[in-house]
Amino acid sequence: MSTNNSKYVPGLEGIIGAQTAISMVDGANGRLIYQGYVIADLAQEMSFEEVAFLLWHGHLPARPELDSLALELAGSRALTDAATKALAALPIDTDPMDVLRSVVSIQGVEHRLSKPTIPLAIHATGSFPTILAMFHGRQLGLEPIKPRSDLGHAANYLYMLNGKESSPEIVRALNTYLVLLADHGMNASTFTARVIASTESDLTSSLVGAIGALKGPAHGGAPSAVIEQLEQIETANNAEPWMRDARKRGVRFMGFGHRVYRVYDPRAEILKEMCRRMNPTFFELASKVEEVALKILHEEHPERPQSTNVEFYSAGVLQAIGLPKEFFTPTFAVSRVAGWSAHVLEQAAHNRIIRPQSEYIGPEPRKPVPLAERG
Amino acid sequence: MSTNNSKYVPGLEGIIGAQTAISMVDGANGRLIYQGYVIADLAQEMSFEEVAFLLWHGHLPARPELDSLALELAGSRALTDAATKALAALPIDTDPMDVLRSVVSIQGVEHRLSKPTIPLAIHATGSFPTILAMFHGRQLGLEPIKPRSDLGHAANYLYMLNGKESSPEIVRALNTYLVLLADHGMNASTFTARVIASTESDLTSSLVGAIGALKGPAHGGAPSAVIEQLEQIETANNAEPWMRDARKRGVRFMGFGHRVYRVYDPRAEILKEMCRRMNPTFFELASKVEEVALKILHEEHPERPQSTNVEFYSAGVLQAIGLPKEFFTPTFAVSRVAGWSAHVLEQAAHNRIIRPQSEYIGPEPRKPVPLAERG
Repeated sequence: MSTNNSKYVPGLEGIIGAQTAISMVDGANGRLIYQGYVIADLAQEMSFEEVAFLLWHGHLPARPELDSLALELAGSRALTDAATKALAALPIDTDPMDVLRSVVSIQGVEHRLSKPTIPLAIHATGSFPTILAMFHGRQLGLEPIKPRSDLGHAANYLYMLNGKESSPEIVRALNTYLVLLADHGMNASTFTARVIASTESDLTSSLVGAIGALKGPAHGGAPSAVIEQLEQIETANNAEPWMRDARKRGVRFMGFGHRVYRVYDPRAEILKEMCRRMNPTFFELASKVEEVALKILHEEHPERPQSTNVEFYSAGVLQAIGLPKEFFTPTFAVSRVAGWSAHVLEQAAHNRIIRPQSEYIGPEPRKPVPLAERG
Repeated sequence: MSTNNSKYVPGLEGIIGAQTAISMVDGANGRLIYQGYVIADLAQEMSFEEVAFLLWHGHLPARPELDSLALELAGSRALTDAATKALAALPIDTDPMDVLRSVVSIQGVEHRLSKPTIPLAIHATGSFPTILAMFHGRQLGLEPIKPRSDLGHAANYLYMLNGKESSPEIVRALNTYLVLLADHGMNASTFTARVIASTESDLTSSLVGAIGALKGPAHGGAPSAVIEQLEQIETANNAEPWMRDARKRGVRFMGFGHRVYRVYDPRAEILKEMCRRMNPTFFELASKVEEVALKILHEEHPERPQSTNVEFYSAGVLQAIGLPKEFFTPTFAVSRVAGWSAHVLEQAAHNRIIRPQSEYIGPEPRKPVPLAERG
């Protein structure tokens, strides 16, 4: 098969960028599968630690394996001296995604190139909540709060953010969110991580690139925009008039649209139920906005499938947990780092450099005009 | 056309990842073209500033445009307070690529997401030499050297590295190197930058991801390895026995192999001539090693084309310029940031999120065993 004459497909839509055992988005049946387990079976019962172990190792941990992972994660919560100083030097109004990108980079600097390993993946995963909580504390002018090694990943993140332990319900909700978002087949940030890994670069470089990709509003940067749009709509009664008017002005509905699911996103379904229970004010408005959005989108494109995406109800859950909206996307990264690092390990194990071609659409070669003669 | 049933092509080899007017690698004819100009016509006559302008704007600058760019670049050489502090906090033995990745990230932090623009591209390009020179100075225990706004891009980089002006010949050599490496169609770091940009993320995120990809030895991380291999070979007479033995031990020859050129890489040709003139000791050994490497590679794979890559003679030129070998790959980034940022601007102007599919090769879904029952 000659692929050299293949036609350009914008966005590589439908092109297979990688083979992976880590997860599968079964869009036709509305299933997300992690290493052979359906997300609905994992979301209610598993800790984020178990799921991270699953993504990295390909099987669920036995008790001693889980205990050992918990210890290693807890041991990875402290920042290096350089990372602590860099974090303290950043302007206080820095986008937390930029804080994460920069401090993860510094936390991971090395003297000589090292190959990606599971211990390095654990080390990085353990540091993300600390970086965000320390910066959040700085913004509030609080003394730095030390991580607690007796708390699980979700509980410790909340403890560091708030300076006190959260209720079991809130911890469980964050844990479920972290499980749901931990991986999602191929997507722009995971693909970024794999492209970087494919050059035989290090894990930190891959993760830093992935954070940068997740930041984009067309990828992970949208959940705070969901809240902002709901704030503008204000009331359920105002939803339809506001949204019809918005559409005339060419405004995009935030939290809708994805390439993969033909039926309702299974993660959105779980998050929607959590919103109903934990955030009734949000739910009342959001479920009406969803109804109107789907109606209008269906009127405009009856051929397109259901399109509520994971970010729509994520926003309500993260709000109920008490996170400021600037921390929604970074908290997505706190979860997804498990998947990113699993993909980097997989890429490194079966590597071929990811280097597509480009198609030249510039001018035909001509002789340059010397500087003195340019008009 | 259904692309959903397309076969997986490892490394996306031969798949078109983007359309671009910025550059073309004409592998069949051994030509590299920037915006309609053949590299051989640019390398000897143009300043890096002219070429960066060409990549960003699509045409060569007239004198007032070039003067204005030179001013803007000179005005972008100072680091922010946060970047200065982070740089000072990094361990002194940090890989300079990790320094660059981290400090570029901090230099570019922002409060709200901004779209990529040419002024931002200039701003980033202006800062790369300062970051590297400041860190180099720290390693040597020198007082920080302030950038000089009266010097061009190459001359100022050398001035900051060495604390004194370099000879016109050395400045010209570095300038030629910077022109030659400024872009190269699609490659793993440029592709990384475009994938990140395709999520509507910011320029800094794209550049930081690209630096991480360039670090990999399968991409830009090899030129220092060329020097290290030559140091092991020691003498021209030792080349053939050492290399035949190395091959038996499965050692890869550094500076050989690429996917694109069927004939001699036009950049390697120019760099080879520069080595002959500027670095005769290197040239004597390297040209013998090249001869033997090509002979052995041809014996092993007679069907494969010429394969001396740009990194082989880059190493000799950068050594002649006086750069320590740890600064070879970062100096590649000093050049390539022009191309990366041009690609980000192009991607942002005609965007569709780059999100390939993945093919699931994991286990079929089954029910998870509860933790208490796992063996």
